[in-house]
Amino acid sequence: MRLHHVGIAVRDLEQAVERYKLLGLKETERGMAEAFRVAISFLEADEDAVKVELLEPLGEGPAQRFLDERGEGLHHVAYAVQDIERALGQLRDRGVRLVDEEPRPGFGGHRVAFLHPEGFNGVLVELVEEKGHA
Amino acid sequence: MRLHHVGIAVRDLEQAVERYKLLGLKETERGMAEAFRVAISFLEADEDAVKVELLEPLGEGPAQRFLDERGEGLHHVAYAVQDIERALGQLRDRGVRLVDEEPRPGFGGHRVAFLHPEGFNGVLVELVEEKGHA
Repeated sequence: MRLHHVGIAVRDLEQAVERYKLLGLKETERGMAEAFRVAISFLEADEDAVKVELLEPLGEGPAQRFLDERGEGLHHVAYAVQDIERALGQLRDRGVRLVDEEPRPGFGGHRVAFLHPEGFNGVLVELVEEKGHA
Repeated sequence: MRLHHVGIAVRDLEQAVERYKLLGLKETERGMAEAFRVAISFLEADEDAVKVELLEPLGEGPAQRFLDERGEGLHHVAYAVQDIERALGQLRDRGVRLVDEEPRPGFGGHRVAFLHPEGFNGVLVELVEEKGHA
């Protein structure tokens, strides 16, 4: 398992992308995650495999509720796993509370699943299946 | 500039380290950042340069205030820079609001500086000087 991205909830994706470019990050992907009702931009540094994900809600849903309740800011931390069913099974066996019992379709064709923040000191954790990566 | 670590504020460092080991992370460093009044654990995945930093307040200060106001959770995102004065100067020239006008001593002998969350959509951003890395 390795760190895959840090997710940041924003109200205005265009504005946020411009701000994050000030840090020297470059936008590498843009699109939507329909299942989560968010528009997404992935940015990364030159030599860095870990990405910053900016996400703007496309309507009612968990991301919009997060913005309403907490405002813009850090939303989740995602880890890459090779076999998401296996990872979920292992975590369940270790007593970790899952949000998603089964993987869901995420951005870019990856399967994803969320773990409950209560298990990780208030941090919403996402698993992203990336074949070929540990 | 590359992602260096994700900082997570916790109430009980020992407990938090054990939880994060469930994700397959290994603790690589433990210590204190006196200037920030926090006890710190750095964890990382096998093949990953980006770390997870768990931080527990050692008394009154910004980290304790964060816990009191928001509870445990994601606290900041840190980027590595080669020359922290140069990076701060460039960001200041671009109109970015700084928390620290000058670098401060951070964990492990690194010089660090924080940028104001208002500039990065609610995310407290830290710069960490790492000679030899971009």
